[in-house]
Order: sequence, then structure tokens, then C-alpha cells
Amino acid sequence: MVKQANPDHPVHTLIAERWSPYGFADRPVREADLCSLFEAARWAASSYNEQPWSYIVARKERGEEFSHLLSCLVEANQGWAKAAPVLMLSVVTFNFRRNNKPNRAAEHDLGLSAGNLSLEATARGLSVHQMAGILPERARELYRIPAGSEAVTGFAIGYAADPDAVPDPFAERDRAPRQRKPLSAFVFGGEWGKATDVVGG
Amino acid sequence: MVKQANPDHPVHTLIAERWSPYGFADRPVREADLCSLFEAARWAASSYNEQPWSYIVARKERGEEFSHLLSCLVEANQGWAKAAPVLMLSVVTFNFRRNNKPNRAAEHDLGLSAGNLSLEATARGLSVHQMAGILPERARELYRIPAGSEAVTGFAIGYAADPDAVPDPFAERDRAPRQRKPLSAFVFGGEWGKATDVVGG
Repeated sequence: MVKQANPDHPVHTLIAERWSPYGFADRPVREADLCSLFEAARWAASSYNEQPWSYIVARKERGEEFSHLLSCLVEANQGWAKAAPVLMLSVVTFNFRRNNKPNRAAEHDLGLSAGNLSLEATARGLSVHQMAGILPERARELYRIPAGSEAVTGFAIGYAADPDAVPDPFAERDRAPRQRKPLSAFVFGGEWGKATDVVGG
Repeated sequence: MVKQANPDHPVHTLIAERWSPYGFADRPVREADLCSLFEAARWAASSYNEQPWSYIVARKERGEEFSHLLSCLVEANQGWAKAAPVLMLSVVTFNFRRNNKPNRAAEHDLGLSAGNLSLEATARGLSVHQMAGILPERARELYRIPAGSEAVTGFAIGYAADPDAVPDPFAERDRAPRQRKPLSAFVFGGEWGKATDVVGG
């Protein structure tokens, strides 16, 4: 299944076709594909090339590793994410390595990296559903994440299921059309809140 | 000019070819291309579909708007970014609209959106150089950005120049190869700091 965006202006297929399914098929992800996902995450831009991102990954075939990672998601997310063949956490490191000063862009740059990973997944027919609903302190304890770093998001990775094979209420969510604010609501010109004329403001 | 990554595992062309030039050619960006960049930013994923991102854009042909935006960059970035035909700021909104509670993923999700924009640019032969070096309080004052939102990054957008036409020290930076940490340094398995065997740990 592919759930297209309905953009007002043309965008690349990888951007239009990326979406976050609740239903995952019972089909493993090849290790070579996983490596390419991490590789895509690796080549994101970052402030001072700090690369303030880390990932913790667990595959379903490693039962204990998988259930450890699943336990770092909030319960509502565990309900659907347990069907995915691969789970992951992203972790941000807050300070620069070179001088230990705060990196104001750290979480932003983690997002750039996660976005790359997600688009590489789309290019390989895989789907990624990112979650803010995780338990960072549970993850810290379980994986011994040091002070100065913190888990930020969870990822379910795999092949999107046919909604007919997905239990409710998740099938309904997967069938719902994708929606976004119009460009005029967030692309401004000379003043905050006033759309730039480039987007018809 | 295209400055390829040298990935250890295959990644999509758009990810391998994205880089952040210091030198920009004296060539304007079509409005239709700009709209597609914003459209790509629009379709990023976000926690609760909050879309906590806004953008403020200025084109060189609007002299006053452009110099206003340029003045929101730190001096070292003004030196090279003034050559770009389009400048931009990203702005994050920290709390959810629906309940005014803190959105823990706000800056991360801004990064997802900015990453989409950057890959759409690559697909159109454009380059984006993002900067953490901006003056958020200058931007707040100039654009009347309300409390609860804050400028996070700057963007120079345009066509990368031939390094032979770029003054030093910027040409040298544009000629330097791109470098990243190896996967084993940031993709972990059962424990923090230990590479997963998927990436050869």
C-alpha cells in the first residue's frame, strides 16, 4: 500500500509517498536494506558536522532485544508497533564533543538524520513510522544511555500492510487521507504570520 | 558542481548528492521551484501532525527584505550567504496548539521538515546550506516572532558555484571531501556504545 500526499505543488515521489503506517506486514527487512537506512542517516547535514545522533536497533528475530526495545515505547504505541519487524530508538547528544558546549541544533539535526533514513526507506519500498511516544528514562536505564544523551523518538520499520489485514482502530487510521496546513499558514515574508507572495500571500 | 558522499552502503542519489556549498552562483531561483521546496517541507511527519515549523523567506530581488534577513545571520555566515539568491529562517513553535503543552519533538520535527526541503532542492539541481549560526533575538524583533516560537536555523538557497569562482577561504571548504563517523560509532544493538552486528559490530 502507498498513501500519497495530495500536494498543491509538485514534489519528488519519495516525499509524496512517505507516510507512517500503523499496520506492518509479517515480512522481515534485509540486513543490506537496514545498512542503507543507517547510511542515509549518516550523511545528513549537522551543525559543525557534529552528527549528534545515535540509533539503537532491534530485530524481531532477536526476541529478547526486540522485547527490550518494545518496552521503551508507550503502551499505546506498543499495541501496533509490535507487528513491525524492526524497532529502533533515536538518541540525541546535547553538547559538542570538541568543547562540551550546548549544541543548540542537536535535536533539529537528529531530525535531519531521521528524515534521511525515512526517505531511504521509502526508496526501498519500506515504511517508517516515527513516534514521539517513548519512555526516555526506561531507555536510559535499559541501554545505559549516559547523561548528556537522551532517547528522543521511536521507529517502527517494515513493509506497510494491506489495511484489510490490519485490526481496528489502526486500519481506519491507515485509510484516512493525509492532511497538512496550507503553505500560506507557515511560509512568511516580511512579517510573522503574513504569507509571502511567493505562495500567493 | 556536485560533491558526492562516499557511502559505505548504497544510498539514494538525492541523499548522496546533497551537500552544503559556501559558494552560490549569481542565478535566481524560480518561484515554482521555491513553492515545491516549501511543499516538500509541508509533507514531513510530525508528532500529532502538529507541523511545528514556519519559514521566513527573502529573495535577493527584494533588496530590503533580503538585507533584513541577512542581518539575522551571524557575521561569519553573512560573508558567504549574501551571494545566495534566496535566504530563509526556520522557526519552531514549542507547544501544541490543541492543549498548549510542550511538544518534546518540536525541534526534531522542524528538522524533518527542513530535511524534506533540502532533498527537494537537490532533486531540482538546487543547493541548500543550513546554518545554526543565526541571531534568534534579532529575528524575533525584526519579524515580531511571538513568545512560544523561536528562529532555529538559517538557509542559503541557490545554485552551487564552481569553486574556481568562489573566493577563499570558501572555495577551499567547497573542495574538501565530505566526511562522517562510521556506522559502528552510532548504530548500537543491545547496549549503548556497542555496534549492532547488522553494521558489523
